[in-house]
Amino acid sequence: MFETVLIANRGEIALRVLRACRELGVRTAVVYSAADADSAAVRLADRAVCIGPAPSRRSYLNAAAMVEAARQVGAQAVHPGYGFLSEDADFAEICALNGLTFIGPRPEVMAALGDKSSARALMSRAGLPLPDGSVEPVPTVEAAVEVAAGIGYPVIVKAAAGGGGRGMTVVRSPADLPRAYARTRAAAQAVFGDDRVYVERYLTDARHVEVQVLCDGHGNGVHLGTRDCSVQRRHQKLVEEAPAPALSAGTLDTIAETALRGALEVGFTGAGTLEFLVDAAERFHFLEINCRIQVEHPVTEMVTGVDLVHEQLHIAAGVPLRWRQEEIRPHGVAVECRVNAEDPDRGFAPTPGRLDRFVPPGGPFTRVDTHGRPGYVVGPHYDSLLAKVAVWAPDRELALDRLERALGEFEVAGPGVRTTIPFVRRVLDDAEFRKGRHTTGLVDRLLAAAAPGSPDPAPATTAPPNA
Amino acid sequence: MFETVLIANRGEIALRVLRACRELGVRTAVVYSAADADSAAVRLADRAVCIGPAPSRRSYLNAAAMVEAARQVGAQAVHPGYGFLSEDADFAEICALNGLTFIGPRPEVMAALGDKSSARALMSRAGLPLPDGSVEPVPTVEAAVEVAAGIGYPVIVKAAAGGGGRGMTVVRSPADLPRAYARTRAAAQAVFGDDRVYVERYLTDARHVEVQVLCDGHGNGVHLGTRDCSVQRRHQKLVEEAPAPALSAGTLDTIAETALRGALEVGFTGAGTLEFLVDAAERFHFLEINCRIQVEHPVTEMVTGVDLVHEQLHIAAGVPLRWRQEEIRPHGVAVECRVNAEDPDRGFAPTPGRLDRFVPPGGPFTRVDTHGRPGYVVGPHYDSLLAKVAVWAPDRELALDRLERALGEFEVAGPGVRTTIPFVRRVLDDAEFRKGRHTTGLVDRLLAAAAPGSPDPAPATTAPPNA
Repeated sequence: MFETVLIANRGEIALRVLRACRELGVRTAVVYSAADADSAAVRLADRAVCIGPAPSRRSYLNAAAMVEAARQVGAQAVHPGYGFLSEDADFAEICALNGLTFIGPRPEVMAALGDKSSARALMSRAGLPLPDGSVEPVPTVEAAVEVAAGIGYPVIVKAAAGGGGRGMTVVRSPADLPRAYARTRAAAQAVFGDDRVYVERYLTDARHVEVQVLCDGHGNGVHLGTRDCSVQRRHQKLVEEAPAPALSAGTLDTIAETALRGALEVGFTGAGTLEFLVDAAERFHFLEINCRIQVEHPVTEMVTGVDLVHEQLHIAAGVPLRWRQEEIRPHGVAVECRVNAEDPDRGFAPTPGRLDRFVPPGGPFTRVDTHGRPGYVVGPHYDSLLAKVAVWAPDRELALDRLERALGEFEVAGPGVRTTIPFVRRVLDDAEFRKGRHTTGLVDRLLAAAAPGSPDPAPATTAPPNA
Repeated sequence: MFETVLIANRGEIALRVLRACRELGVRTAVVYSAADADSAAVRLADRAVCIGPAPSRRSYLNAAAMVEAARQVGAQAVHPGYGFLSEDADFAEICALNGLTFIGPRPEVMAALGDKSSARALMSRAGLPLPDGSVEPVPTVEAAVEVAAGIGYPVIVKAAAGGGGRGMTVVRSPADLPRAYARTRAAAQAVFGDDRVYVERYLTDARHVEVQVLCDGHGNGVHLGTRDCSVQRRHQKLVEEAPAPALSAGTLDTIAETALRGALEVGFTGAGTLEFLVDAAERFHFLEINCRIQVEHPVTEMVTGVDLVHEQLHIAAGVPLRWRQEEIRPHGVAVECRVNAEDPDRGFAPTPGRLDRFVPPGGPFTRVDTHGRPGYVVGPHYDSLLAKVAVWAPDRELALDRLERALGEFEVAGPGVRTTIPFVRRVLDDAEFRKGRHTTGLVDRLLAAAAPGSPDPAPATTAPPNA
């Protein structure tokens, strides 16, 4: 095992990685920007290195500063967390060139899989079903029109280099395609420095189902079952659960086994997630693979008992996979929600500010991952994720009641700070969601129902405290 | 299920019961003394009723005030938590007379089992092995001398009406017996209003092993395996774990099955714990049965997935037991420690004060039960338990490393406030404890090692943050 690991991230995931390292007896060094000098990870790490000012480009996206920080603290490995440099194949290569183990797949595998278009081609060859559409990038608007006509509307135009829910445009009629095509290309060029896009069928009323895999560098791999992340707002997940509900066991097994086969086929190593859309007929379509730990990984940990970050560290250290497939026996149901510092009533706009009061929930079968603390200042520089609350129960109904209970006791208060908690509680109260029959259209439906002039949403089933 | 439950307790257990009720859709009413007006449970409950001033006799031990509070809020049932009135058979009877369901065994069963002497006699008849000693109370000092001579020293003189680690005196030589006998009787009379005592062999270097059982009113019962609570200071538990380590599976099964048989035999209903001492030869001896939820119940919940407070509520509501023995499949290891506001360097004296900073640990496989909050004032009126930190892992070694990690991130600070965290960390670093080979003598050994003039204790294996 490594002696020292550099944690090249911030927020709750920096803390998550720190916890795993500490439990394995690995010394921790965390990087931070000037805006994060007082963060929980900085407080708790064995070493902390300031790598630049607040803007991400000058700190958390600065590969050279990361390498210098690793040298300074004598780290042998770098854990990139999620976001920032975690899916940057160049960074993985820079680490390797500097004698540092990048905790993730090999750079060339990352490069191939990070490009959505090439990932689709690879996975298609590995036998994974793709949504109808172009396997290769679509070079001209005329070609896009032709592809769309072939598969039928609505379609979605996606940046080949995209990720994190950015660089996608849904197109509902042929008249809208030319502009959407041009706009997505321009946006892709601006955000990812790569204007290639592809076109595929946009599945409405589908579920987002993903499979967690672990693969070592010795040809071994296991899957850890499925997660459902259909509760999304603009492709950002809000509520996630394991296993995916209301699908037949046969379908879930097939998706999971197919995903693992694909991951092994393309030489993936580490902890990864293969994302699928599943339609009403339980047909599944590969979307993309994420070559990093996922925000929603706790729900998989809670149903399997496997610490995924421990396994990332073991795999990166060259240890053969410590689990056989038959030893992974998921039980019960885990549900997580994201508590973002956002105002759901104002289009989920971020609400920066100081947390005067911050008391996360606790008690039975409840897990909280947060870098929030009393006095913490939610700044304008980074994403608005403040905490993840996850619960476990033997069955889904109790898990949802438990999450409702946990959210009801979460105290977050500060001038101007709002959170997604009230919105998540509306999701938990939704009849379709309760049945597990919701699709990726759920959030839009709830938002439409709450819009001025529309009928009141159904009343909450659980009264707020002291109500 | 009940519509409203009165929570007749305070502190972390009031919050624990509140959480269970809320998850089951039961309205909660919590009682509080004037000193607890600002407590977490009061904040979160649907209703809260002040039942008197701070001293327990005038509030949390006031049965009439509890009944009046229940009437006021329209509660159908009363959950007594642990301590206070939880093992008071008279209170259970008063509840029944007032048409309230007392969440616990029937009053006559509680009366018989609450008296240690009668419990021993009943359990002995049910086939449970007792430590050598008197089954019945010992009425005179001469009789005590005779019993002690028959079994050999050291012996322990125990109050028949005792509990919670109080009313016991260890006697190491015949010369000390008369005074110890007289003193224990006097103390028993003063504390419990009952001066009967009995004498039994004091097992040194034994382990404290207990069995969690659930029995309904329909003749069904299950055990939920064992817990080890050998890490005790003056019979107060500090660290608890499930299952009991370093004993053969056969012994653990036999203890658990014997305990369940005993509980069913004596007509016990609800959630209960049978305590045993296990000697080096793995012989086990029944000590007592606790007819209530136990402080250390979370470790059993973490290895079984069963919510014990939910089950208490279901059983009290007359629901047949929802688990069959073969459905209880404990897996992994859970370890809990108590974080008391005490100064281990000053004989564990309570350290009341205001918590300026209070940030409990979080993250993977970590559970915290606490009523502590930033700004909470640890008062002088009640016991010093501030928080319970429990962790789960697939194996014991990782569980201990995880608990060490969790404790390392627990921030508790306030003028004058000290906690048991540093002492617990010494326990976790102890070589015998790490092997699971420790006995009830562990704490005294650690305290002796730390006493002035004795060699320094072994250095901690984990460096403190930023050290």
